[in-house]
Formats: sequence, C-alpha cells, structure tokens
Amino acid sequence: MVPDDIIAAAEDFADAAGAVIRPLFRSALLVEAKGDASPVTKADRDAESAIRALIATRFPDHGVIGEEHGEHHPDAEWVWVLDPIDGTRAFVTGRPLFGCLIGLLHRGVPVLGIIDQPVTGERWVGVAGRRTRFRAPMGGTPACRPCAAVGQAELSCTSPDMFDDTLRPGFERLRGAARRVTWGGDCYAYGLLAIGLVDIVVDATMKIWDWAALVPVIEGAGGRVTGWRGEALTAASDGRVLAVGDPALLADAVRLLTDR
Amino acid sequence: MVPDDIIAAAEDFADAAGAVIRPLFRSALLVEAKGDASPVTKADRDAESAIRALIATRFPDHGVIGEEHGEHHPDAEWVWVLDPIDGTRAFVTGRPLFGCLIGLLHRGVPVLGIIDQPVTGERWVGVAGRRTRFRAPMGGTPACRPCAAVGQAELSCTSPDMFDDTLRPGFERLRGAARRVTWGGDCYAYGLLAIGLVDIVVDATMKIWDWAALVPVIEGAGGRVTGWRGEALTAASDGRVLAVGDPALLADAVRLLTDR
Repeated sequence: MVPDDIIAAAEDFADAAGAVIRPLFRSALLVEAKGDASPVTKADRDAESAIRALIATRFPDHGVIGEEHGEHHPDAEWVWVLDPIDGTRAFVTGRPLFGCLIGLLHRGVPVLGIIDQPVTGERWVGVAGRRTRFRAPMGGTPACRPCAAVGQAELSCTSPDMFDDTLRPGFERLRGAARRVTWGGDCYAYGLLAIGLVDIVVDATMKIWDWAALVPVIEGAGGRVTGWRGEALTAASDGRVLAVGDPALLADAVRLLTDR
Repeated sequence: MVPDDIIAAAEDFADAAGAVIRPLFRSALLVEAKGDASPVTKADRDAESAIRALIATRFPDHGVIGEEHGEHHPDAEWVWVLDPIDGTRAFVTGRPLFGCLIGLLHRGVPVLGIIDQPVTGERWVGVAGRRTRFRAPMGGTPACRPCAAVGQAELSCTSPDMFDDTLRPGFERLRGAARRVTWGGDCYAYGLLAIGLVDIVVDATMKIWDWAALVPVIEGAGGRVTGWRGEALTAASDGRVLAVGDPALLADAVRLLTDR
C-alpha cells in the first residue's frame, strides 16, 4: 500500500534530521522560550526545515503538517506529519529519550511512522500492513508482549501534570489497577511498548504530530493505539491517547479510564 | 588522598558489573518480586556478586555494604558501597537511564564514586580533591553550570510518589519556585547535574548505596549534595537528598524544602 520509494525517503528524512539534531544534543545555548513556555530548540526548528526541504524536492504534491513550521497543503492525498524533537524536556536535560517523529497520512489515515532516536541510534519503522522494523543498538525485538490483565501491566505516562481534574480520576483508576507506573518518556515510551517492555501508555494533550507516527509502529508490532474511549485517532481527536501492547487489554483500559 | 590503585580498581569493578548487566538489558525473564515489591533482577544480584568477589581478592581488609547482599565489615577503614542497578524501574522497562553505583567511604566519608551506564557507555568518576571525569559517548562535559536563582533552575525528581504528606508541601514549594520539573532519572539525574544539564535534584527515601557514589561525582564537578536541611549526608541520614549544581542555590532550596 505504501510504495517502497516513500518508505526509503522517510528513512532519508530521519537521517537528515538526525544529522541536524546530534551536534546540538547536550550543547550549550539551545533553549529558548516559546509562547506556551515549552522548551523548543534550534535543533527542533532546523531539523523540521531540513525535512521539509527534502519533501518539497522529492514529493512536491505532498502536504506537510509540522509542529514548528505549520501546515502546507494539509488536504493533499499524502500528508507528512512532523515533530522533529518529541520530548523537548528530555532533550534539554540531556536524556537520550526524545525522538524524531515522522508520520505519513494517506487520506487522513496514518500509514507510515518512524520513531528515530538519533543519539542512541535506535529507529522504529512502522508501515501499514507490514511488521515493524527496529534498529536496535541497545537490544530489543520489535514485537509487543502478551499481557493478560491490567493488573500485570507495566504502565508508562509522560507526566503526572498532564491530567486536569476531569481526566485525573480515570487515570488514577487505571494506575491503581496497573502493576506499576513509570514516568517520563514521550514517544520513547511508545517505542518501548513496541519492543515488549511496556504494556500500556496513556497520555493527554497529544497533537496529531505527537501520535501520527506512533500508530503504524505500534500496530505493526501487534499493539493498538486509540483514544481513551477506544476510538480511532483522527485529526479531530481530543488529544487523549491510549496504547496497549496486548489488544486484550484495550477494553479494560478503556473502562478504567472512562467509567465515571 | 585516595590511592591511584584504588581508583583503577573501582573502574575495574564497574567494567565487571557492566559485563554482567549488558547482556540482560532488554532480555526476557529478568523481573522478580522482592519483599518490598520493587523490581530486582538477576543482573542486580549477579553484578554485585561479581564486584564483591573482586573486592575480596584485591582488598581483603575493606568492608562492603551492598543493596543486594548486605554488609561485610561495615566498620572497616575503607568501605565499598554498592548498588549495581540503581533505577531498576528504568532497567526493567528498557530505558538506558539506570546506573551502576560504586562508592567508597573512608572513615565514613564518601571519597570516591562511580556512576556507570553500561549500555550507553557513559561513566562518571568522582574522587575527593580531584575534578570529576566523564566518559561521554553521547556528549557532555563534567562541570556543573551556574544558576543564579531557583526560578531559573531545571529541577529533576525520580517520582512524584516518593513524598509522603509530611514531605510533599516542601517539595511543592520548591517545585513551584523552580523553572520546570522533569520526572524520572534516579542516579542518572545526578549525572546530568554533574554535566551541567540539570540544576537541582531532590529525592526522598534514599539509602546510603543510593547516594554514596553521587557525592564525590557532584562535588568534583562543582556542585553540592546534602540532606534537605543542608546537612552533610551520613550513615544516619533520613534518606532525603538535595543536590545543587550551583552552590549558590543551596540556601534557597533548603529554605523552600523545610519552611513550614
């Protein structure tokens, strides 16, 4: 369904972004304030510019939605969705757990995703209808693991601060039922789910560039990514994302998150 | 003050532990339950055994305190303090942010510390009276950075769940005053402080094997490690640890943590 030349191009885009990002990791003078006070870096902006230049050359008909530089033909048949540094907090504090996210939508559906960690050299490549590939310099195999019940599940969540008062009760129910929670991770936590080391990831306030690349990676490893009600993620989603490594966990996780 | 042959031996111990730990990272079947329900692994136990065997051969008069295998001559002049996998949660979920901690006390005072990350290859070596060394395959320089005020400080803390009701108000005051908080990290967060990417780390419930190795690393990089009241850490400490990269932050951090 996704042509091979597009898959190869997506990996080229990740290489180009990594070449921009690597020299800036742990360098001085890279933090600036944005309007919303989140940290954003020269690496983020320059890496997105590098990818956009390659898209314009290779696929002039394709659209682009990027966290840093906005939308270009977002109604095109093929639309790239970019977040060159997902996990800016990890980046600015020197943790190699951020990721460069490159997603591709075909008529609105995520059909290709790359999670690239340019410092460790890890790369997850997911394509609709194919098994996820994983470049694994630190070990790991691209397959979600079985997990029969929420009570045995290793839960991961980026931050306890992302849940407002309407979302916290659901999150706390899920957390109370899970075996254990680990904080931090951004896209990297979803990558760990796709190599069978984490069972459930829950986040809120996710934009399309945060989740588009994750869907093909996780589904190609045997897992599921949905909203908190188990619904498919679309451009109109409310930002709440639930990923499970074992699809058998989905119904219980949804029930815990949404029962009121 | 610390003889060179002891420093070289400490690095040998870290090498030996890393050789045990690396093959088990991201491998299956490594999680067991301990009495306190924390995850502890074959890697943890076997790495500590490997170090203890080397200590017994090289320094038969030295004492050892280890998280996994208990105390041996804890009143000796020189006592090694070991936590082969600090950050077991990071280890079992596949995050390369755990560390092998090797500390050495001389008459009860931490005079040598190693934070070793055997998967990324990073290693911090701190020795009393010397500048901290850092093996940096992913970049970074072993020096704390200046930070004039708590309001500009990057704060790190292992988990929001480690503060009971008596400690939470102090932590929340510090967190409210800091620029930003990042969760997760264990010993790795202290390593990031020692390379100038984090300004304050606060934890509670730290045992001597959690903090002994950190003190020489951070002080040799220009920072300070104390209890929450600014007091020196000793075997009798209450488990609350405060580290600052810029010593000028210490008084304000102590005031925020302890004012009631």
